[in-house]
Amino acid sequence: MKCTDDIEARDLEEMTINIDPIQAGGRLTADAMKAIIAWGDGYSVCDNCRKPFRLDYIEKPPINVFHDDLAAFVGMDEARVVPGARRGFQAVAGTYVQKGDPVMLTGLSHYTEFLAVENTGGVPLEIPKDEHNIIRAEAAAEKLEEAVRTFGRPPVLLFLDQVDYQYGNLHEVKEIARVAHQYDVPVLLNGAYTVGILPVDGKALGVDFVVGSGHKSMAAPAPSGVLATTAERADEVFRTTKIRGDVTGRTFGLKEVEMMGCTLMGVTLMGMMASFPHVRERVDHWEEHLANGKVFVDALAAIDGTVIKSEMPRRHTLTRVDTTASFDRVAETHKKRGFFLSSALKKKGIVGVIPGATKVWKFNTYGLSRAQVEYLAAAYQEIAEENGLSVSA
Amino acid sequence: MKCTDDIEARDLEEMTINIDPIQAGGRLTADAMKAIIAWGDGYSVCDNCRKPFRLDYIEKPPINVFHDDLAAFVGMDEARVVPGARRGFQAVAGTYVQKGDPVMLTGLSHYTEFLAVENTGGVPLEIPKDEHNIIRAEAAAEKLEEAVRTFGRPPVLLFLDQVDYQYGNLHEVKEIARVAHQYDVPVLLNGAYTVGILPVDGKALGVDFVVGSGHKSMAAPAPSGVLATTAERADEVFRTTKIRGDVTGRTFGLKEVEMMGCTLMGVTLMGMMASFPHVRERVDHWEEHLANGKVFVDALAAIDGTVIKSEMPRRHTLTRVDTTASFDRVAETHKKRGFFLSSALKKKGIVGVIPGATKVWKFNTYGLSRAQVEYLAAAYQEIAEENGLSVSA
Repeated sequence: MKCTDDIEARDLEEMTINIDPIQAGGRLTADAMKAIIAWGDGYSVCDNCRKPFRLDYIEKPPINVFHDDLAAFVGMDEARVVPGARRGFQAVAGTYVQKGDPVMLTGLSHYTEFLAVENTGGVPLEIPKDEHNIIRAEAAAEKLEEAVRTFGRPPVLLFLDQVDYQYGNLHEVKEIARVAHQYDVPVLLNGAYTVGILPVDGKALGVDFVVGSGHKSMAAPAPSGVLATTAERADEVFRTTKIRGDVTGRTFGLKEVEMMGCTLMGVTLMGMMASFPHVRERVDHWEEHLANGKVFVDALAAIDGTVIKSEMPRRHTLTRVDTTASFDRVAETHKKRGFFLSSALKKKGIVGVIPGATKVWKFNTYGLSRAQVEYLAAAYQEIAEENGLSVSA
Repeated sequence: MKCTDDIEARDLEEMTINIDPIQAGGRLTADAMKAIIAWGDGYSVCDNCRKPFRLDYIEKPPINVFHDDLAAFVGMDEARVVPGARRGFQAVAGTYVQKGDPVMLTGLSHYTEFLAVENTGGVPLEIPKDEHNIIRAEAAAEKLEEAVRTFGRPPVLLFLDQVDYQYGNLHEVKEIARVAHQYDVPVLLNGAYTVGILPVDGKALGVDFVVGSGHKSMAAPAPSGVLATTAERADEVFRTTKIRGDVTGRTFGLKEVEMMGCTLMGVTLMGMMASFPHVRERVDHWEEHLANGKVFVDALAAIDGTVIKSEMPRRHTLTRVDTTASFDRVAETHKKRGFFLSSALKKKGIVGVIPGATKVWKFNTYGLSRAQVEYLAAAYQEIAEENGLSVSA
């Protein structure tokens, strides 16, 4: 089926079980699909934009209410929608980081956090992960001390992924935020894999910023996301424009500098809004998704030679696995080489793994039903056995 | 009709004639509607993302080809998609402007250009418009000289709107670019009202950057846009990351710093791509749209007291009109005050004007058929006559 001469219709989510690590939380809800059809046109949400002409004040559709709901959803005071979590990182880095400033990240920070720092000319310092791939408060405290010794001052900002993209591990957010605040370092929580997936309460965690991704974890179209903060920090990161035309004397009202004015003017925002009631509800069912995920993790771990690289027991559905001593051994002699696995999976209707990858790879079972994860578990074990690998009972 | 309990279905474009000044060029094509339904899910375009893991290298769907097509479409060498024209401004300002640097804009620059400058700490200098609201090369030369005298050096960047948002006037782009280059000032052409509407050839105009808006003028969902440049400047604005984790030693491949990595990962890009063949074709029919627009402009001008504030004859369908001495005189005594006009229009199925506005307002007839503009012209004249205003033959 085609959308146009050059564009195939995508039917991956309808026709297969997709365990792609980044796509699981971004599948649209049926309501979002309805909303993007009705609100697809460019500046569709601007029909009823009135003074002071800012996205978050629009009442019809209820964008203003949505902004309040979003802030409450992540336990913060103020929220704005942004074109992806990365644009939230950029806004916060743009507010606090000057050239040469030390900025704290971690050994598991996402590359977009590094780019946000690079954009400002900041100097990245990583809190090392421990041997279990966890970022701990003790390591944060040591690294902060080291930064103070080296730079004569603490970092200006600390980025911390609540769940990292490499292992899907949970880190010591609350404890690290406490340590950072002893140095007056504001803390940005990257909730790209958590906001919209599991309950997140920014104030309870003691962070200054919560960033979430619409297209990664809030069942929204790309690019979309949320940047939320406390009342105290809102005036900084959401500061309004002060620039003035030297000839015309023009000023630009209440437009927010780091937001570049309005952010999501149509389909992205409406998809996010339409999914939101479902997203708000689904985080309360996180334990079920986690339990489903464990079915598949256990099945993989039972294939001899397979090592789950993420923390165990799993506390997130994004998981890293090492099959060097299982599927990759098959690949060594299989006529399809490493492609035997993705090829066999595809025949069983399973997609989302990089074709050819048989060593270290990632998957995410979020959103799959119990029946689907059981099918998945059985499929992998079948492929293992068909290829001479033994599976523990 | 509703999309969800809280969200009405938008049917403005189906049920009315919409002359909103910013919405005209961003209505989706039927192909775009098909594409956004099929590709609505979050990271939908990432199914076949392979090394080196960058949006513009993806072959399926043909995103790589689209990038080449986009560059050619605006007569430049390299192009990237961005989340709105404003993010293109931000990327270019981020590349060239340091704190305290003089930056040239114009008395008709869009606020987002100012925000891009404010974000970098640059100092805005406006080239004044002339008495006809045109930005001329002579004024640019004078302002550049003044900048050199004041700052001891030329501005680091010049922003120029090909067609401005206030009057819809065309400015002396080619001549100003020539003057700017005498001072080695790179020129960014803001084509938010032109790219996708009329033929734009960046190299023929002699500019260094062409920025277009997907949701304003390329029949694409928001936020989307294009930033295109020359081979010479591409290495600067599309420079790849050099940052490195101090503990892990991690680097981040070919990700582009000003793009913050990938930009439009799903619905926005696919809508833009699906509309593109139509957009590429429609710019060749610009003269028809312009001729249609003139029908309405002439009809308005024939209402006694009405003054077209934009340059005449019109060279763009975005037009500013002053009805202080016509419709606003009616408003003074009408029981609905200024709302009589929008109310009467609404009854005739015409929307897109700010309710209550009877003094100075803007409209855009782009995309309307000859029958629609004739209806529009007749409707305004009827309302005028019904309210005691005379209409010239």
